[in-house]
Amino acid sequence: AVGSDLIRATLFPGDGIGPEIAESVKQVFRSAEVPIEWEEHYVGQEIDPRTQSFLTWESLESVRQNGVGLKGPMATPIGKGHRSLNLTLRKELNLYANVRPCYSLPGYKTRYDDVNLITIRENTEGEYSGLEHQVVRGVVESLKIITRQASLRVAEYAFHYAKTHGRDRVSAIHKANIMQKTDGLFLKCCREVAEKYPEIKYEEVVIDNCCMMLVKNPALFDVLVMPNLYGDIISDLCAGLVGGLGLTPSCNIGEGGIALAEAVHGSAPDIAGKNLANPTALLLSAVTMLHHLKLHDKADRIHDAIVNTIAEGKYRTADLGGTSSTTDFTKAICDHL
Amino acid sequence: AVGSDLIRATLFPGDGIGPEIAESVKQVFRSAEVPIEWEEHYVGQEIDPRTQSFLTWESLESVRQNGVGLKGPMATPIGKGHRSLNLTLRKELNLYANVRPCYSLPGYKTRYDDVNLITIRENTEGEYSGLEHQVVRGVVESLKIITRQASLRVAEYAFHYAKTHGRDRVSAIHKANIMQKTDGLFLKCCREVAEKYPEIKYEEVVIDNCCMMLVKNPALFDVLVMPNLYGDIISDLCAGLVGGLGLTPSCNIGEGGIALAEAVHGSAPDIAGKNLANPTALLLSAVTMLHHLKLHDKADRIHDAIVNTIAEGKYRTADLGGTSSTTDFTKAICDHL
Ligand SMILES: CC(C)[C@H](C(=O)O)[C@@H](O)C(=O)O
Ligand SMILES: CC(C)[C@H](C(=O)O)[C@@H](O)C(=O)O
Repeated sequence: AVGSDLIRATLFPGDGIGPEIAESVKQVFRSAEVPIEWEEHYVGQEIDPRTQSFLTWESLESVRQNGVGLKGPMATPIGKGHRSLNLTLRKELNLYANVRPCYSLPGYKTRYDDVNLITIRENTEGEYSGLEHQVVRGVVESLKIITRQASLRVAEYAFHYAKTHGRDRVSAIHKANIMQKTDGLFLKCCREVAEKYPEIKYEEVVIDNCCMMLVKNPALFDVLVMPNLYGDIISDLCAGLVGGLGLTPSCNIGEGGIALAEAVHGSAPDIAGKNLANPTALLLSAVTMLHHLKLHDKADRIHDAIVNTIAEGKYRTADLGGTSSTTDFTKAICDHL
Repeated sequence: AVGSDLIRATLFPGDGIGPEIAESVKQVFRSAEVPIEWEEHYVGQEIDPRTQSFLTWESLESVRQNGVGLKGPMATPIGKGHRSLNLTLRKELNLYANVRPCYSLPGYKTRYDDVNLITIRENTEGEYSGLEHQVVRGVVESLKIITRQASLRVAEYAFHYAKTHGRDRVSAIHKANIMQKTDGLFLKCCREVAEKYPEIKYEEVVIDNCCMMLVKNPALFDVLVMPNLYGDIISDLCAGLVGGLGLTPSCNIGEGGIALAEAVHGSAPDIAGKNLANPTALLLSAVTMLHHLKLHDKADRIHDAIVNTIAEGKYRTADLGGTSSTTDFTKAICDHL
């Protein structure tokens, strides 16, 4: 039972290191007195013995009811023909926009110290249609689907995000010089939405050129919006600029305002259960969830505690060159709160 | 007429800065006494008044006959419905592999000093099929086509390239976790070819992860082979690591051993005719053409002269932070020969 002052949020700890890093989030949230009660469900590569399924109806209903959730890494069930659970969640919950803020962390040196951008990825269609077939032996085809509805929806989200987050530019990433109809429709929708936001600058950048510009000078970009596969590629590229998927948050937005934040790194089965995992990506994802709930003060406090702990450099997990355990690193963050 | 000791090669200077940088190549080749006679044809955005076409049969025949050629940048003809001339050449000449060596230039600082890789891109199919249509209003689709024949051909080229160029690893880049049939077929073909080259290490890397690894640590890669669009994206990303398309060579390989080297940067109409263009990409592309002709000594001499001129830093064009004209930079290279 939840008190009237508590917000209920779904938690999918996931597989591998998932439970450990989820524990870290719970602990930091407790320390920061975040008014959230977690409703925990297992979704992952093991079959639920009661339902004989990887993903239960209750788990989905929990996110739908609560409107917010946090997910750890999920391994794809072993055996032929299983769909990635990440994709299944996107589809079932109609998570149409994947938002990944990407910024240089003070004190954690990479080749770049000037990154501060947001990638917004259309998350439901494009090259992820799943429609493929063999035409004749040795000739196969995949369908990329672009719809006006999904393109307008993600463009609208991107411009609204830019406006409400003090960002002044949206770049639509495309390859419409080759895919004139599909990427052309995507751009057309972006242009339509851009007209409603005259205060936000709008530009269109071809994906190959975008990648070149990103590695040469990421400060050129602010908010980027793009079809599914380009978003998959560019969000990982951008994460690489600031240190990798272990350090970057992600949040999926669905119809009706659902937000499912997630760590997009893998489940790292090799170090699972060894108290070695870096919880930063899941923690920063949890912070985006707090912003979504308009708990901005809590979000900022936790964000700063994470960043300061990493910047201080005394407690860092092995992937960041340190020797701290997950629990020591988590404790250090709580101490910084 | 060509003396028995001269090799005939086709030259398409192209549009914009094309003629100036082509002149630079001709001059450097003269200085280095390269035994080549150029057969020059105009292919570009202007209609040939005799034939009323952008691309004449003679131009194509010239490359087919000579077996080697060099092309400058070509702008896409203005007006609706014109195909990119780059794509038309690829198609007409069946240029199935696009090879882009990408290495850090000594003396030209970027964030990376450890890049030395080769991207090999399938150049004829994939997302570039041109097959697109509207299903119903607001729903469009593009077809990505992967064939066994084209995949085997480019994989064979990549492994052969690795073997003959002293490289020990080939990475196939894909998104077969999503496009299981198309990218799956591509991988299957790469695996088949890999078995014939037990001395070359073979690995498969998902494109999003590949981009993250490339920006974090490009030294992890050696030879990369991939379907068309991934090659488009990754070759530009890699060029960005070492300074951009103005510094990186490219060569297209066709059936029957045709090689058409090209500068892949744009025609830069804003600086055309002003003696400001950087001819490096076209010069380095011309060097790959010489290697193709087995004129390795000439190729190495010219390559070193270019690299040393840039490293010395006294003569650099504006895009590299210098004040030299195209002709002064070219003269400096000739002096370094
Ligand atoms: C695991 C994979 C199916 C997934 C994707 O391609 O979307 C991942 O790369 C991601 O970005 O969440
Ligand atoms: C100009 C464009 C059609 C072309 C491509 O997409 O292949 C270019 O980006 C390239 O890489 O040569």
